Amino acid sequence: MRRALALAATPGVPMVADTRRVGCVLLDDAGRTIAEGFHAGPGTPHAEAAALAAAADSAAGTTAVVTLEPCDHTGRTGPCTQALIAAGVRRVVFAEPDANPTAAGGQARLEAAGIEVVSGLLADEAAALKRVYDVARAEQRPFVTWKLAATLDGRSAAADGTSRWVSGTAARRDTHRLRALCDTMLVGTGTVLVDDPLLTVRDAEDRPLAVQPLRAVMGRRDLPADRRVLNSDAQTVLLRTRDPREALAQLWARGRQHVFLEGGPTLAAAFVRAGLVDEIVCYVAPFFLGAGLSSVADLGIGTLAEAFRPRVADVVVLEPVVEGEEPNVRFILTPQHPADHQERE
Amino acid sequence: MRRALALAATPGVPMVADTRRVGCVLLDDAGRTIAEGFHAGPGTPHAEAAALAAAADSAAGTTAVVTLEPCDHTGRTGPCTQALIAAGVRRVVFAEPDANPTAAGGQARLEAAGIEVVSGLLADEAAALKRVYDVARAEQRPFVTWKLAATLDGRSAAADGTSRWVSGTAARRDTHRLRALCDTMLVGTGTVLVDDPLLTVRDAEDRPLAVQPLRAVMGRRDLPADRRVLNSDAQTVLLRTRDPREALAQLWARGRQHVFLEGGPTLAAAFVRAGLVDEIVCYVAPFFLGAGLSSVADLGIGTLAEAFRPRVADVVVLEPVVEGEEPNVRFILTPQHPADHQERE
Ligand SMILES: NC(=O)c1ccc[n+]([C@@H]2O[C@H](COP(=O)([O-])OP(=O)(O)OC[C@H]3O[C@@H](n4cnc5c(N)ncnc54)[C@H](OP(=O)(O)O)[C@@H]3O)[C@@H](O)[C@H]2O)c1
Ligand SMILES: NC(=O)c1ccc[n+]([C@@H]2O[C@H](COP(=O)([O-])OP(=O)(O)OC[C@H]3O[C@@H](n4cnc5c(N)ncnc54)[C@H](OP(=O)(O)O)[C@@H]3O)[C@@H](O)[C@H]2O)c1
Repeated sequence: MRRALALAATPGVPMVADTRRVGCVLLDDAGRTIAEGFHAGPGTPHAEAAALAAAADSAAGTTAVVTLEPCDHTGRTGPCTQALIAAGVRRVVFAEPDANPTAAGGQARLEAAGIEVVSGLLADEAAALKRVYDVARAEQRPFVTWKLAATLDGRSAAADGTSRWVSGTAARRDTHRLRALCDTMLVGTGTVLVDDPLLTVRDAEDRPLAVQPLRAVMGRRDLPADRRVLNSDAQTVLLRTRDPREALAQLWARGRQHVFLEGGPTLAAAFVRAGLVDEIVCYVAPFFLGAGLSSVADLGIGTLAEAFRPRVADVVVLEPVVEGEEPNVRFILTPQHPADHQERE
Repeated sequence: MRRALALAATPGVPMVADTRRVGCVLLDDAGRTIAEGFHAGPGTPHAEAAALAAAADSAAGTTAVVTLEPCDHTGRTGPCTQALIAAGVRRVVFAEPDANPTAAGGQARLEAAGIEVVSGLLADEAAALKRVYDVARAEQRPFVTWKLAATLDGRSAAADGTSRWVSGTAARRDTHRLRALCDTMLVGTGTVLVDDPLLTVRDAEDRPLAVQPLRAVMGRRDLPADRRVLNSDAQTVLLRTRDPREALAQLWARGRQHVFLEGGPTLAAAFVRAGLVDEIVCYVAPFFLGAGLSSVADLGIGTLAEAFRPRVADVVVLEPVVEGEEPNVRFILTPQHPADHQERE
């Protein structure tokens, strides 16, 4: 199911608002992967159909692991339930029931055809994927995850600007895992000019993934042509605006659903102030600098009662994976969504 | 054993360098406390003797829970082993073996007299108590625990100076528990002038403990007579210096072994720069201010490689105890001691 979820979130694949990200893996009885598929956008095959096509004649008797309950209706493509039954799939495991009334009923249809169905596996992870889609669709803009790494005294860079690496190896690997779930990397011109980051996604062995998210740089300044973000490792777009809403509109128009905002402090503060941060991933490294760049710029908060207090969705200690390093802590925070606020008013 | 450890660290009891803090509880078979005792300084009875005296005729058949292995030699007081045997104690439980060669051998002596002996209970906690004593004796100054509470962006107060409360209820209770293990509370004049803290130790029901640590305020400015730290809830001393080493010398001369440094950022930075912080307790509250007072002032660090990187001894998530609050994270850090550095060179 983890692999199916990763397929669902295949980076770089642009999706329009009404398209769900879905992934599917076909396994044989020994647990070996026979074929994989993901939904690549409107008009293209559903994840199940893509996997079945890749499997050709080997689909019979396999277990289909899908992130979303297979649909039971004919839209731009035929019902996936029929395709799974016709291919002779023996078992279907899915994470999230399909809440769409016209597409629901897949589980019942499959069971009626004698297929064993298991649901709810890694439902939390699937729900996170669904939240991205739900917020994006409701707000008609990409979902925004803001990632920051800070010291115990809230610094993201030392007095001389050095910031590699604030967090440890375990946190950096974790960041790449989370980057891989997004379709767009976003930074300000300041970060590109100071840090010259590559902004690609690499795996635990530090190899770049085959499919890379879009790289976006926001701000009015020109970038020197030698900046690494402009190389051919992935696509790059320059958003020549300082308005977060305008930047997200441009990305939305390109079919982007999930933006990973990696700073810097100025850009992050602008998104927070505009109420355009949907999720925060904050790595805390247990040391002190006593000076240097604060991890977030001025938020316009004057007194403690006005503090920006997102809910805590998760706190974990990331144990070091390299000798001599210290544990880091990762917070996942979810600011209350404007829509949630309205509901409560 | 927790109670014995708490007795050992009875706040407010001044101790000179060569005095170990020891606590003892006598329990009957049902686990009820018959008597308690702690060592109150040179020339006074050992913890076991104090507890036996308090128990009078009821000591026979009890279990003695002691933080340190009972001594087996005659110093300024008689051997505790003899006193326990004479009183008819049935079982002895202790945390830490006595490493002092002249006093060691207690366990063997007790066992030879037919008393059941159990050792090593809560040895980690006892070792922490011992570390305080070891560092204090080696350095000939009190051990310093620096406590700070900061937001995810490293702020200890908002732009307008408000700082009550940065951390949640669980973290504040935890702080009082740790304060109770020290014999001195230390802050700078800045914190007293801005926050007017009481600096007393209160229990989980917010009642002040019967025995309070000494309160110390460091700095050259005069304090207005109405400051709460000058009230009669506990003793207070004004250290009219800006030199951390001089301040610790004054406290050492008063028999202080363990200072709890609660800020503010200026004073904390001065102690860090002087290499006079032995332990750091840092509470991180999961929210952002974007402006306001940094949790630690300038440490003279210019670049990331020079960062102040203490070892991480412990990281825990403190779940909220009050509805609507969020979890906080507590780091316990141990800067490498100058003595440790020398050993490694
Ligand atoms: N530890 C971490 O997690 C982390 C992550 C990233 C960066 N950093 C550090 O952050 C530093 C760079 O900080 P930074 O704050 O300058 O970077 P930034 O936020 O990436 O870039 C700021 C620039 O973005 C442009 N911009 C776009 N939208 C804006 C808006 N709404 N308001 C204001 N400006 C906007 C402005 O430049 P124009 O004039 O071009 O419009 C502005 O100067 C580097 O030292 C880097 O090491 C740390
Ligand atoms: N969240 C927390 O954990 C926490 C804890 C404590 C305080 N705070 C906040 O900290 C703020 C007060 O900050 P602060 O930094 O002014 O407080 P501070 O560190 O308590 O006091 C600073 C003052 O101490 C004196 N001092 C003593 N030794 C010194 C030295 N070696 N170097 C420089 N000065 C020395 C100086 O005053 P003289 O002129 O009198 O010598 C100096 O102005 C308040 O807003 C409070 O809310 C937060």
